[in-house]
Amino acid sequence: MKIAVLGAGMVGSAMAADLSKKFVVTSIDRSVAVLENVKQKYPQLNIKQHDLGEVDTYDDLLKDFDIVVTAVPGFMGYRTLQAVLAAGKNVVDISFSPEDTMHLDGLAKEKNVTAIVDCGVAPGMSNFIIGYYNEFMHIERFECLVGGLPKLRVKPFEYKAPFSPIDVIEEYTRAARFVENSHIITREALSDIESIDFAQAGTLESFNTDGLRSLIYTMKHIPNMKEKTLRYPGHVSLIQSLIKGGFFSTQKIKHNGVDITPLQFSSAVLFDQWKLGTEEAEFTIMRITLSGTLKTDLSVKKTFIYNLYDEYDPISKTSSMARTTGYTCNAAVELIANKLFNKKGVFPPELVGGETGCFDFVMKYLSDRNVSYTLLES
Amino acid sequence: MKIAVLGAGMVGSAMAADLSKKFVVTSIDRSVAVLENVKQKYPQLNIKQHDLGEVDTYDDLLKDFDIVVTAVPGFMGYRTLQAVLAAGKNVVDISFSPEDTMHLDGLAKEKNVTAIVDCGVAPGMSNFIIGYYNEFMHIERFECLVGGLPKLRVKPFEYKAPFSPIDVIEEYTRAARFVENSHIITREALSDIESIDFAQAGTLESFNTDGLRSLIYTMKHIPNMKEKTLRYPGHVSLIQSLIKGGFFSTQKIKHNGVDITPLQFSSAVLFDQWKLGTEEAEFTIMRITLSGTLKTDLSVKKTFIYNLYDEYDPISKTSSMARTTGYTCNAAVELIANKLFNKKGVFPPELVGGETGCFDFVMKYLSDRNVSYTLLES
Repeated sequence: MKIAVLGAGMVGSAMAADLSKKFVVTSIDRSVAVLENVKQKYPQLNIKQHDLGEVDTYDDLLKDFDIVVTAVPGFMGYRTLQAVLAAGKNVVDISFSPEDTMHLDGLAKEKNVTAIVDCGVAPGMSNFIIGYYNEFMHIERFECLVGGLPKLRVKPFEYKAPFSPIDVIEEYTRAARFVENSHIITREALSDIESIDFAQAGTLESFNTDGLRSLIYTMKHIPNMKEKTLRYPGHVSLIQSLIKGGFFSTQKIKHNGVDITPLQFSSAVLFDQWKLGTEEAEFTIMRITLSGTLKTDLSVKKTFIYNLYDEYDPISKTSSMARTTGYTCNAAVELIANKLFNKKGVFPPELVGGETGCFDFVMKYLSDRNVSYTLLES
Repeated sequence: MKIAVLGAGMVGSAMAADLSKKFVVTSIDRSVAVLENVKQKYPQLNIKQHDLGEVDTYDDLLKDFDIVVTAVPGFMGYRTLQAVLAAGKNVVDISFSPEDTMHLDGLAKEKNVTAIVDCGVAPGMSNFIIGYYNEFMHIERFECLVGGLPKLRVKPFEYKAPFSPIDVIEEYTRAARFVENSHIITREALSDIESIDFAQAGTLESFNTDGLRSLIYTMKHIPNMKEKTLRYPGHVSLIQSLIKGGFFSTQKIKHNGVDITPLQFSSAVLFDQWKLGTEEAEFTIMRITLSGTLKTDLSVKKTFIYNLYDEYDPISKTSSMARTTGYTCNAAVELIANKLFNKKGVFPPELVGGETGCFDFVMKYLSDRNVSYTLLES
């Protein structure tokens, strides 16, 4: 089978390398420099320079491939997915576009292809898990705590990101939606700060972010659902001060005759501060809690807690962020390749996790790559 | 006697109004709008529009005046003082120029005039006090804690300033010098944060700033001298985070094709945040501690503590900052007018405070205006 991976960034290239153990894989990107780096690190990959913004070229670009993976920046994710579907290709998407990709469900059905979207760690793995448990439980409460953090804690932010600060700040300022007693609640981002101790990461702070995405609609029968982001203590308080201090305002300020927004400018200041080094140790931490009753016996109350703690792999020089998100996406590629999942249309992972064999396959796929979830059951 | 007050800002105009109770006073400023406001608030004042940057016009500008007060922005303070002295006028200066005004001592002597410089609250009143006690004590330790703060504490900074944020940030980033065991010590600004409880202001934080100025040279026989700034708790920590986060860097960043420094930009962001309203309640707090032995009896250890807590005056609508700094400066004007001090040359207040009658006069002048220092002696 031939697979095209669109986008050769940190996650896209790690995915392509992993997929190449089993498939013939071509990494496609606009940047020759990026592709040459990828080829040097992973000589087994084919590389192809192409401007992925030119969506009318996709029919020709993708004609020889069986499955397509889209790992492009979020802002171009929707158009890319649309073009891949229009080209009649099965696709797994990890681009996290701000638009609702469910609008492309009709197109996917018309083309008789499968699209699994939002397929990273959270959203992604968290959705597979809820989809799996939703089959045999009346889930009453779902909570996902998740964060990607540097091992080395450097003040004042103790934070690094493999993507632009402006995207992180967007997450820090967009109102957070969660579900409480079957009502969609909207709260300020960064609200409800709680201090939580983790065995491998120590004390972290959790706070509300708008991360439930498709679950708000696909799982609306679950009365309580919440996603919170994790950071080192103090980070959120500093961010709140910056927000309150006007540093992330989108009101233009006239400075030396030039209009400029504090948000743009602060992002430029933070770019160096938050830049994750290509070989910098970082980790992904996630705790998913599901509680409810068994459908087979409504008197049995159960709680399932999945814990993930995954670090940068110094041998393969692969970031934990790439491993935990990209390998989940790759597992979904194999679900399609192996026809374990062959429904037609657009599916977030919670609509895949409940299909026979799919969840176990994904968990096995990740554990084979040392991305290990531990389960506490009570 | 006729007095010219150069600069009609918040402090300059309050000084002119106070002086006008006894003298014929003319406020001189570049801005017609500023002068018209001053005239409306204080109709007894004469006003004169003049660009004070044109220092070659001072002979003519000042010819009818007996004493001049310079209350211009610091960056033009030195040139202004120089021009006033060259015009042969007695002068009291509250401009706090970064340059060392002692370089003008020869010029003042040559013109046979008196200049009292750095004549605010700290430097200013703190210098009068040390100069006074220096006459009859072997001072072993001098400490000055001082701050100007808004009554209303608004997060994240809980701070307001009647001058540009860039001047405050300069103070927050310039290395702080103090004297310890007769050595000049240089420490990072904002270092040695201590939490201190004050009866009227509650808990504040003190930290090192570079405020000793002339005392380092005129009082070098005193083995321990320190000035620290006071702010509400948390302010310094946030400033340190901003410094460390790169927000006050003077390295230019290319943004949308324009070179801009984070310092300039952050100052623009903070301008609104830190702007003190013209009728906003604020206070000045100062604690000066002097300890040592009496010259008359070296076995007697004494400690003198001066406390000042002064608030915005809602009746005269005069800020505490203007009252505590400006009225000290005005007291020095009267020292010259009354010939209580008539040495020729340039003098910081510690060289005035030791002259017979001067310190008591200044204290009485301030107490008559409800700027009240309380003294604890032990």
